[in-house]
Amino acid sequence: MPPVNVELVNTGSELMLGRVLNTHQQWLCRRLADLGHVVTRQVAIADTGSAIQQAVREALGRADLIITTGGLGPTSDDITRELIANLLGKKLVENLDVRAHIENFFSQRGRPRPAQTSVETLVPEGAEVFLNATGTAPGLAIKIGAGSWELKAGKAGLLPDTSPVSPASPQWLVMLPGPPRELRPMFDHQVVPLLQHVYAAEVFICRTLRTTGIGESRVQEFVEADLQPLVRRGLEIGYCARPGAVDVRLTASGADARQLVGEGEALVQSILGASIFGLDDDELENVVVQRLTARKQTLALAESCTGGAIAQRITDVPGASEVFLGGVVSYANSAKETLLGVNPETLRQYGAVSEAVAREMALGARKKFNSDYALAVTGIAGPGGGTPEKPVGTVFIALASSARVEVKQFLNFWDRPTFKQVTATQSLDWLRQAML
Amino acid sequence: MPPVNVELVNTGSELMLGRVLNTHQQWLCRRLADLGHVVTRQVAIADTGSAIQQAVREALGRADLIITTGGLGPTSDDITRELIANLLGKKLVENLDVRAHIENFFSQRGRPRPAQTSVETLVPEGAEVFLNATGTAPGLAIKIGAGSWELKAGKAGLLPDTSPVSPASPQWLVMLPGPPRELRPMFDHQVVPLLQHVYAAEVFICRTLRTTGIGESRVQEFVEADLQPLVRRGLEIGYCARPGAVDVRLTASGADARQLVGEGEALVQSILGASIFGLDDDELENVVVQRLTARKQTLALAESCTGGAIAQRITDVPGASEVFLGGVVSYANSAKETLLGVNPETLRQYGAVSEAVAREMALGARKKFNSDYALAVTGIAGPGGGTPEKPVGTVFIALASSARVEVKQFLNFWDRPTFKQVTATQSLDWLRQAML
Repeated sequence: MPPVNVELVNTGSELMLGRVLNTHQQWLCRRLADLGHVVTRQVAIADTGSAIQQAVREALGRADLIITTGGLGPTSDDITRELIANLLGKKLVENLDVRAHIENFFSQRGRPRPAQTSVETLVPEGAEVFLNATGTAPGLAIKIGAGSWELKAGKAGLLPDTSPVSPASPQWLVMLPGPPRELRPMFDHQVVPLLQHVYAAEVFICRTLRTTGIGESRVQEFVEADLQPLVRRGLEIGYCARPGAVDVRLTASGADARQLVGEGEALVQSILGASIFGLDDDELENVVVQRLTARKQTLALAESCTGGAIAQRITDVPGASEVFLGGVVSYANSAKETLLGVNPETLRQYGAVSEAVAREMALGARKKFNSDYALAVTGIAGPGGGTPEKPVGTVFIALASSARVEVKQFLNFWDRPTFKQVTATQSLDWLRQAML
Repeated sequence: MPPVNVELVNTGSELMLGRVLNTHQQWLCRRLADLGHVVTRQVAIADTGSAIQQAVREALGRADLIITTGGLGPTSDDITRELIANLLGKKLVENLDVRAHIENFFSQRGRPRPAQTSVETLVPEGAEVFLNATGTAPGLAIKIGAGSWELKAGKAGLLPDTSPVSPASPQWLVMLPGPPRELRPMFDHQVVPLLQHVYAAEVFICRTLRTTGIGESRVQEFVEADLQPLVRRGLEIGYCARPGAVDVRLTASGADARQLVGEGEALVQSILGASIFGLDDDELENVVVQRLTARKQTLALAESCTGGAIAQRITDVPGASEVFLGGVVSYANSAKETLLGVNPETLRQYGAVSEAVAREMALGARKKFNSDYALAVTGIAGPGGGTPEKPVGTVFIALASSARVEVKQFLNFWDRPTFKQVTATQSLDWLRQAML
């Protein structure tokens, strides 16, 4: 079976104005890749009739499966449903299941149903309807028969019919609501079964090895030459650099895919070793929580310059409460003394950003929370506060365990939010490596 | 002057595989909109020759200005520079400024220059070069003369030359490196001056009023009818819902733009009042820090279920250290007792997730940090830990000031990270409204 040609069309003027981040692209591309369908093209356009119809028309001229997001809600800028029905020459008809669902949605919450939600009950005739488990607007899937679909738009004079040829096999057009908390469960529980029914997935293997502490060029220098024999057999390599971390991505398709990716992974593992903190979706904080859980050990934090960024990442992990006792965000010097027991004399003599204070913060946090490990960070996030001896970006990280307390110094020269993330990554990775 | 038709082309197989979030789209769309150029289309495609050339060729057939991101680095999947030079029939030539810049970049850091960075010194002949202030790969801008450009690719047999007509006025193709910390300063300091030189901006006004605490349908019900007279005069309204917050976006272009948007803003302000926490780029945490700074008051936090999310947001604000003294992330009950002075008997009698414990946490934080205000949160983030009386999503938020301590209860039924964000938003917004 040939690969399914998938295109995404994200609608929303707020996307084109840059008011919101398009998280749908990553999420849907990821889910589809896991199903063996790599998206070939993603397009974002404004909520205007001509832009939406042109983008969908072009996608229909190329793709087997088109997924649109957004424009199904109750407000006046939600026009995707109507435009696509129009483009495909389909009437909108009221769906009673949708009506009952929406009425139930509001009565359960004890709120009156806003009048505008009536528009959400209209669906193109013949469409499959996905009731919205976490909201009101349903998702829709329209099958466009082999060689049979016609674009009414050209006839209706909405747009000149420029390009598409009739497809050789049926196409599917899936329309999903814009809010991620509505789109995601709908895709997983309602769209995936449809796709599995319609398309037999081809073998596609993707493995990502996630590293931290080495730059992108260096990572490539270390692994590229050794991987060449596998590349000649069809393995593809990709690198993705983020602040403080580099992913190595190995992909292959076809009958040898699993073998090729497996050999590639073993080779990269043997070269990069402990710099690899995880695979695929692993996040550093999840790996740290897993390690602590397996070892039945606990963690406490004393964060100054990271301002809660380490705690925020740790507590995103379900089950973190089993191993994470808590932390102190000690922004003020007085908080370092009162809550962590840092000696005022140490603060006076060495300054808040110093090896000695980091050490006392870690020891203090470990004692106050009675934990196995404590991580402490103190530094200068910027943009202000730097000095010639301690420029913006200076950080001391301390790790205390039952055996010892150690301090490392880094110079993380980034903007403020990135500084916090990179410093949090270094801290968590040190703890991870201490538990190897 | 007619509007400039701008298209973005984001390249990267990691985008199509869903391995990374495309932050360039939002960032560049936002910056361009602020310059009066609303992006009409954004396309993402994989790092393959045919996909990149097809997307750029199509964009050249429609747009005045094409901006590409990614594929300029030193690794083997960085092929955009070469492909576009090829498509435009331009030779790649070594640029000595770029070579000197890269050599300097590595020598400043005391690191050897990786051999692969040589490819970054090659630029299409005649291109404008943007030296990379925060990295090695330069950005590039190529002017394609009115009616004169030819696509060599068709001749070279790379792709059939399907569509484009020769443009009536010069086009610009700008190529930017993929890492955000390289792309962003390069765009602001090197690309913007070029665009201001080439295009006289038309008047385009965009105002976003940011609200919290009201649902999207309700926001529209409140404002839509009153705005209709302005809509008939050319005002456009958009709504953007995020967990816990809804943006109302007013836009207009042309001579009346400022007047129309100004009248619309005054109307929405009069209707939604205190639910509006800020305008445009204002983030709730910035507004809270500004208010505290203006009032010379200080804040402390006691976070249980939010796990540092409030501190993380507050400390992203430059200058937060003037007003934010610190916080305790009290995940374990023992930490609530030891660090915040919560009475063990209160914990035993009411449970950690209770109005009484929230109250004692806020009072304890205010006392320990000696702050003017203290916010405390305790709740059940899920997915585990719910009971029939206190289901997952139950939250108690307490706000202590010199005058009183109050507690509010919420039911925030979301996934774990969203629960943390929504609860942090409710907490910060309560503090904001307390300072009105």
